[in-house]
Amino acid sequence: MKRYGVIMAGGGGTRFWPLSRKSLPKQFLNLTGKDIMVNETIDRLTEVILKEDFFIVTNQAHADLTFLMAAGRLQKDHILAEPAARNTAACIGYAAMEIVRKFGDGVMCIFPSDHYIRNTDAFARTIEKAAELAEETGKLITIGIKPTYPATGYGYIRKKKHSGMEVQEFVEKPDLETAKQYLSSGSYLWNSGMFVWKASVILDHFRELLPDIYACLEKIGAAMKTPKEQQVIAKIYPTIPKISIDYGIMERAHDVLVLDGDFGWDDVGSWETLDALYKPDANGNVIRGEHIGVDTKNCISYSDGKLIATVGVSDLVIVETKDAVLVCDKKRAQDVRKIVETLEEQGKTEYL
Amino acid sequence: MKRYGVIMAGGGGTRFWPLSRKSLPKQFLNLTGKDIMVNETIDRLTEVILKEDFFIVTNQAHADLTFLMAAGRLQKDHILAEPAARNTAACIGYAAMEIVRKFGDGVMCIFPSDHYIRNTDAFARTIEKAAELAEETGKLITIGIKPTYPATGYGYIRKKKHSGMEVQEFVEKPDLETAKQYLSSGSYLWNSGMFVWKASVILDHFRELLPDIYACLEKIGAAMKTPKEQQVIAKIYPTIPKISIDYGIMERAHDVLVLDGDFGWDDVGSWETLDALYKPDANGNVIRGEHIGVDTKNCISYSDGKLIATVGVSDLVIVETKDAVLVCDKKRAQDVRKIVETLEEQGKTEYL
Repeated sequence: MKRYGVIMAGGGGTRFWPLSRKSLPKQFLNLTGKDIMVNETIDRLTEVILKEDFFIVTNQAHADLTFLMAAGRLQKDHILAEPAARNTAACIGYAAMEIVRKFGDGVMCIFPSDHYIRNTDAFARTIEKAAELAEETGKLITIGIKPTYPATGYGYIRKKKHSGMEVQEFVEKPDLETAKQYLSSGSYLWNSGMFVWKASVILDHFRELLPDIYACLEKIGAAMKTPKEQQVIAKIYPTIPKISIDYGIMERAHDVLVLDGDFGWDDVGSWETLDALYKPDANGNVIRGEHIGVDTKNCISYSDGKLIATVGVSDLVIVETKDAVLVCDKKRAQDVRKIVETLEEQGKTEYL
Repeated sequence: MKRYGVIMAGGGGTRFWPLSRKSLPKQFLNLTGKDIMVNETIDRLTEVILKEDFFIVTNQAHADLTFLMAAGRLQKDHILAEPAARNTAACIGYAAMEIVRKFGDGVMCIFPSDHYIRNTDAFARTIEKAAELAEETGKLITIGIKPTYPATGYGYIRKKKHSGMEVQEFVEKPDLETAKQYLSSGSYLWNSGMFVWKASVILDHFRELLPDIYACLEKIGAAMKTPKEQQVIAKIYPTIPKISIDYGIMERAHDVLVLDGDFGWDDVGSWETLDALYKPDANGNVIRGEHIGVDTKNCISYSDGKLIATVGVSDLVIVETKDAVLVCDKKRAQDVRKIVETLEEQGKTEYL
């Protein structure tokens, strides 16, 4: 069965402000120094899925940019433009309908656009196995990540006892104590948000578990390959109920399997995650661009051009871009979105 | 007797990096929002000393800039250019010789170029009194500052017991415990580095206490008003022994009087002193330029153009200029010079 990649690239990118902007969200950033994240997501899977068989679902405002930055990897009609952000269930349902209506059926391999993967060979093998499993079993396959520390920033997947792949339950982000128990128990995996299944199978689940969304998807599907396609999408898509695929389907379906992923995975969620992507220097600092430090420890210094000089500081994220400078406690990197919110409140749109 | 102002503006300005540069040291910065510091030094004394009777002693490299930025306050021949920095004794001796040889004699009122004074009326009255006293008594008058906190960054002047103005001794920068004792004793004043005396009187002290320097000054003096003046200065000045006026004369002379200064004085020594110049906002922050803060306390944020955004930080100095960003623990602001030293070592002259 034909395989398709689906990259969810609809993020607003507030957590990498001031580098990420409304016009240039995280998926377009080159944080690893090789290529922008959305392209790396395609390129690391060439052995498993053909480049031209990827779809990128993104905000309408970023559709042209996505196509341009994909630099010939895929055709323009493989950019699926969302007229409005309606969370991951809508995004995945739209892609599934596209595949079923335009290509018959296929195995969909779904990836967020903001993952960093160290061991791409192991990763490709895992996705290959998941695709085979999805085709053979007709089940919903999710990729779990073997935890390496008691993370409180991820949801977890609990496996059934004495079972290789069956899922007991999905659990929310834990507190530190609970995360430590999860880590030592050996039966919990991080929920990576990567899914593999047949397009027709996930649509069946929409019909059963999310009938309101399915009704919308049916209308959109009916218009596909007709002159009214874009018009119907523009009208219907913004009315799709907002719900995540985890909450809407994964936590409720009874035919979910999980594969253990062990390939050096990081969710590039906000600035402090650069610590995991780069090897910090002897002082624990991660430096991009020019930097001079006096008594500077465990800082992330990211410069777009200017020299960043630091004296007597530690555990800071410092980012300089063309029009803004961020200085943030590393533990508070998630709260960079509060800066973006404040800018919106104050109408300082030039910085958004 | 005619009065002259002498402003010592020879500083290299490393402590206000990255705003101050080799080509633009601290005395040319407008940190108070009114005018550059060297001009403010002239303008706050118009009731006591005529603008055109000021001299500015500065590094030869900054002589033209000093004249331009003085914006008509004084004639070009009142900029005394030092071919080399030889500390304050040389600087003051040169100015004294200039006054004696070219104008007969006069009361010299000597000021560093980096002081902030809140109550300029009280300041002018103090200098007026000092000038009268210097003329009447022929003694060396120094301005002491009534301490408002146990400062460890200033030298102190101890007054004789039961004496209004007589000096017991000059003492070095104390540790905190000692500074607290000085503060509570009531007989210690901060050594401000402002001096008032007759030019002829200080030259007598050079002859007696610093004969090597006096010999150099005599050679320079003999060439003044001759075509060889600049040539002799260029040759002799760099050979003058480097010593401060405090160490060379003030601490050894027996005819020193001190006036109590109480006019809201701050030495604008490094970035953290901006806290004293500006009223911090409700969160203790001093902001110049655009800034957005989330949970930000007791920071100094100085922007030359870009937005500075801060999250979860406190007690930092953050400075953004055209080509550099500084992030510094406020307690370590003195160590900004180490950045400058590192830049010199690394040959990154474009940032100096």
